[in-house]
Amino acid sequence: MPQGQPAVIPDDGLTTRARRDRPLLIVHTGDGKGKSTAAFGLALRGWAQGWPVGVFQFVKSAKWRIGEERALRTLATTGEGGTVTWHKMGEGWSWVQHRIDPGAQPADAAREGWEQIRRDLAAQTYRLYVLDELTYPLKWGWIDVAEVVETLRARPGRQHVVVTGRAAPPRLLDAADLVTEMTKVKHPMDAGQKGQRGIEW
Amino acid sequence: MPQGQPAVIPDDGLTTRARRDRPLLIVHTGDGKGKSTAAFGLALRGWAQGWPVGVFQFVKSAKWRIGEERALRTLATTGEGGTVTWHKMGEGWSWVQHRIDPGAQPADAAREGWEQIRRDLAAQTYRLYVLDELTYPLKWGWIDVAEVVETLRARPGRQHVVVTGRAAPPRLLDAADLVTEMTKVKHPMDAGQKGQRGIEW
Repeated sequence: MPQGQPAVIPDDGLTTRARRDRPLLIVHTGDGKGKSTAAFGLALRGWAQGWPVGVFQFVKSAKWRIGEERALRTLATTGEGGTVTWHKMGEGWSWVQHRIDPGAQPADAAREGWEQIRRDLAAQTYRLYVLDELTYPLKWGWIDVAEVVETLRARPGRQHVVVTGRAAPPRLLDAADLVTEMTKVKHPMDAGQKGQRGIEW
Repeated sequence: MPQGQPAVIPDDGLTTRARRDRPLLIVHTGDGKGKSTAAFGLALRGWAQGWPVGVFQFVKSAKWRIGEERALRTLATTGEGGTVTWHKMGEGWSWVQHRIDPGAQPADAAREGWEQIRRDLAAQTYRLYVLDELTYPLKWGWIDVAEVVETLRARPGRQHVVVTGRAAPPRLLDAADLVTEMTKVKHPMDAGQKGQRGIEW
């Protein structure tokens, strides 16, 4: 519950209003739960503001986030609020015309996702981007961290970006306006419980 | 992204399926952002499972969570998925027939909220409870921690409960199955930026 009072008033020549409207780069990282879940919660807020929201899921399984996807897609069909466009690497990105070669490298698919995000940022397609689990292809070297950071820093307009995933690269954290680390304090898997419906997916 | 493999197989005589169906007490605490946002993300999953979801907001201002509220209420009207019932202390709890006395103590309102949760837990009204910012009335001694812990431990059926807020009491953490701490690494308010539309609410 933010108290609304900034710790310092910056000497940046901006009005409070201009500062309020600054586009944010947000990172949810750490080993705990809630990184993606909180990002999809932000998508709810964006939808309620009437924004076009773009989700890019950098995970292999198309089954992940099935609950959030269904909920946000349903919201988008109500005609109230904004739009939600959902892109899944696990199903082959929707804009990719050629059939995904089953033997194709996931690195190529990840790079194709990033290239689309670059195009959308340049075109200002969305007001909020959820780049879910983007940290993994960064960590594995499939997508160049420096290029991502540079592109995000230079993005035009008022586009908010949320990146989720463990082990976010330090350069991304440096560039971010808001970083939250989710830390596991206690998890039922420690006590031998498996993930369950409605909680894990 | 949980890997699905528990660290140990517990010697509790339960099948994996029975263990999977165990009701969870989840706590999102810490000074960082995302505690409530992640809880509302879980509500999306619950809705997608077709569950009745109950939200109890223990915050004074009725304006908080306005985006999530609009989104989840809209989802509930689609006829798909589950139901969402939203209770706000900040507007006077909906079930309270008498007009809230403007001079009334918030402690009384908080206790009224907790009494309703007790009744709903006993009646198994919801499958998922979001008790948003419940930690504050606990911290301030308005609601008795021992009673809350005892009631939650003894709740019947398969009701999941998510409690959010800073400074969760140790006894609540002991009773919880899953605890995530959200830690602020970097926040734009540190650089003098105020909260903004679509991000903070």
